[in-house]
Amino acid sequence: MGFFSKDIKTLEDLFVHTLRDIYYAEKQIVVALPKMIDKATAPDLKAGFEKHLGETEGHVQRLEEVFELYGVKAKAVDCPAIDGILEEADEVSGEVEDKLVLDAALVASAQAVEHYEITRYGTLIAWAKQLGRQDCAEVLAQNLAEEEATDRKLTGIAESRVNPQAA
Amino acid sequence: MGFFSKDIKTLEDLFVHTLRDIYYAEKQIVVALPKMIDKATAPDLKAGFEKHLGETEGHVQRLEEVFELYGVKAKAVDCPAIDGILEEADEVSGEVEDKLVLDAALVASAQAVEHYEITRYGTLIAWAKQLGRQDCAEVLAQNLAEEEATDRKLTGIAESRVNPQAA
Repeated sequence: MGFFSKDIKTLEDLFVHTLRDIYYAEKQIVVALPKMIDKATAPDLKAGFEKHLGETEGHVQRLEEVFELYGVKAKAVDCPAIDGILEEADEVSGEVEDKLVLDAALVASAQAVEHYEITRYGTLIAWAKQLGRQDCAEVLAQNLAEEEATDRKLTGIAESRVNPQAA
Repeated sequence: MGFFSKDIKTLEDLFVHTLRDIYYAEKQIVVALPKMIDKATAPDLKAGFEKHLGETEGHVQRLEEVFELYGVKAKAVDCPAIDGILEEADEVSGEVEDKLVLDAALVASAQAVEHYEITRYGTLIAWAKQLGRQDCAEVLAQNLAEEEATDRKLTGIAESRVNPQAA
């Protein structure tokens, strides 16, 4: 968030601001995921990241649909939270030597990203409903469902393969 | 994370590093919560933050217990993720004029913090079990349970009172 937050006077403003925050976040994740795909070793982890890159591009488009439904400009605002989460992911993964330990670190980083998105979509859906915008809530719920599914899938990959191999 | 991450060679190293990351995060949250308590208006939100401040001080102590069980020094490493999440919380809350809208923003920020902690504790518990350290996993699970309960309570406060009043 940041520069534009001076304009927050109503729940509508807060909704639009947070929509622009997650729009920025999704776009940053589109940039970050190819680097994570490159670093991943376990085939199912690599494939999972690849699939999620496609989904994330779809999330950006769905957010643009929500902006249009709501009648405001699709615009990104700085989001220090996702910047910090991705910076941490990058720092740690850059410092792990062993490929199998790196996979475990990548899963943890990806789940931190997913959880940020899950909390933001949860909030946005609640606010959309409160504002009587079931139409926006339904589109946002599609993104949330995919983030939650990705988080569960990452847990499965970690427990079945990545963590045992790293240990 | 950051400076110390050069030492990550094994899953044990990654576990200790991530423990130090969440230790830093919990300490930063102890600093941030009193500011959120001051800003909150709804009595149940203010009371919820106050209760969670006490719990968070307990989380720091439990982490020190895990460090001791694991036989490593209790030490914090920089965590850009929580810094970013708290920076964003501070920026947004500082820019909302209306007290009732501010409460809605505070709940959203607090839930972003909770979700970061939930994902880190989830990862740490999985790694502790993988490393055969059920003793550490059990202590960490107590922190996780309180973070999850706080997140659910915040959702309840938002839906029953804060969001309707903000709208």
